[in-house]
Amino acid sequence: MTQSDPSTVEELASLVREFASDREWAQFHSLRNLTLALVGEVGELAAEFQWIPDSDVEKLLADPIKKKAIASELADIFSYLLRLADVANIDLDAALKSKVSLNQTRYPSDKARGSAAKYTAYE
Amino acid sequence: MTQSDPSTVEELASLVREFASDREWAQFHSLRNLTLALVGEVGELAAEFQWIPDSDVEKLLADPIKKKAIASELADIFSYLLRLADVANIDLDAALKSKVSLNQTRYPSDKARGSAAKYTAYE
Amino acid sequence: MTQSDPSTVEELASLVREFASDREWAQFHSLRNLTLALVGEVGELAAEFQWIPDSDVEKLLADPIKKKAIASELADIFSYLLRLADVANIDLDAALKSKVSLNQTRYPSDKARGSAAKYTAYE
Amino acid sequence: MTQSDPSTVEELASLVREFASDREWAQFHSLRNLTLALVGEVGELAAEFQWIPDSDVEKLLADPIKKKAIASELADIFSYLLRLADVANIDLDAALKSKVSLNQTRYPSDKARGSAAKYTAYE
Repeated sequence: MTQSDPSTVEELASLVREFASDREWAQFHSLRNLTLALVGEVGELAAEFQWIPDSDVEKLLADPIKKKAIASELADIFSYLLRLADVANIDLDAALKSKVSLNQTRYPSDKARGSAAKYTAYE
Repeated sequence: MTQSDPSTVEELASLVREFASDREWAQFHSLRNLTLALVGEVGELAAEFQWIPDSDVEKLLADPIKKKAIASELADIFSYLLRLADVANIDLDAALKSKVSLNQTRYPSDKARGSAAKYTAYE
Repeated sequence: MTQSDPSTVEELASLVREFASDREWAQFHSLRNLTLALVGEVGELAAEFQWIPDSDVEKLLADPIKKKAIASELADIFSYLLRLADVANIDLDAALKSKVSLNQTRYPSDKARGSAAKYTAYE
Repeated sequence: MTQSDPSTVEELASLVREFASDREWAQFHSLRNLTLALVGEVGELAAEFQWIPDSDVEKLLADPIKKKAIASELADIFSYLLRLADVANIDLDAALKSKVSLNQTRYPSDKARGSAAKYTAYE
């Protein structure tokens, strides 16, 4: 698997599972531990944007160092998300598709168009 | 794309991009908005585990309703993560692989085995 | 103690401690549980602002229902923060003053004026 | 105001307000910025506990360096919470008391005793 080949979620889940198992880290990867670790990474992502007003975010992304930092935070979040699903024996790929399907009924295109309202507004 | 076919990260990113674009939601999907939305979903995941001591998490997962709720939270987190990467024009698949590669040098198997220490301990 | 009298942090810590102890909730208030609960409440606060661009936040606050919702989230966060400090046997009042003192040396007024840089920029 | 005198929430809010205003930081303290900053600090708190199973938390607290680190994170969280309330013109002290009062009706002692159920279970 090279970095340029697109991978399935399943393949990436294997990649991080093997990384953890090579280091005997499964013992640390309880669901509560992974959730707290995920919170830590989401906190790092939030910190990237904390003092950047909406109007300056595009400028931030144009800085390659900042963009790389953000990519690195997204990768950390993804990594713990894959571990969480794996440890909980949840198929993240199927869970996503199932949630999108549910949201398609919750947010009918014609009603939800251009609105940030919660789905309960359409029930 | 059926729910049972394994998808690439890229395909799932397209799925949520189209879902948003069908509803003209791109206007809401700024990086700061998506980060705050991600924080909200991570908060819902944390709430699932907040009063469950480590020793009871397995019992929680054995309850199909609870397991489905956790899968639903993971899907919400994944969905915003895919949107964040997409809006920032970051290849999440490549970013993950690149981070795993970096961590392979940061956490040499022989040193990191069975340890939860941060990589700075091995430098 | 009426709602209008200003209280010390210590008095408010007692208030939430008694509330919890009247319900025999100390058993649930481990530091990890409280941290996860705090994350859940911070997620609810983030959700209040997730689709509101910077330019519309003032308008949001002018809506008494929204303002009350935000006050309620801040109260929930404060409540878990008080419990965390109490359970960890940390004097939150003193910890805050001590951190402000530290930050006074980390962020000298003349250098930090008008800058959002991290203190490490001044070392 | 010395570090040993107990302070009211209002006094501490003034302390952090003055600290910010001495550095002309009010311009950065929008509600969304402060919320993202709060998320960052909560992430740092979560990271303190991420690899510590429930059974080892007491041992962690017995380490003065770790305890000080946790106190420092709680202070950071408190500091942003005070700023959030201040900027939103919310009386955090009154908001807490008001929430405790509400919770006293939501969680009647006789029903909620020893239970971690949500208040909706008692309605």
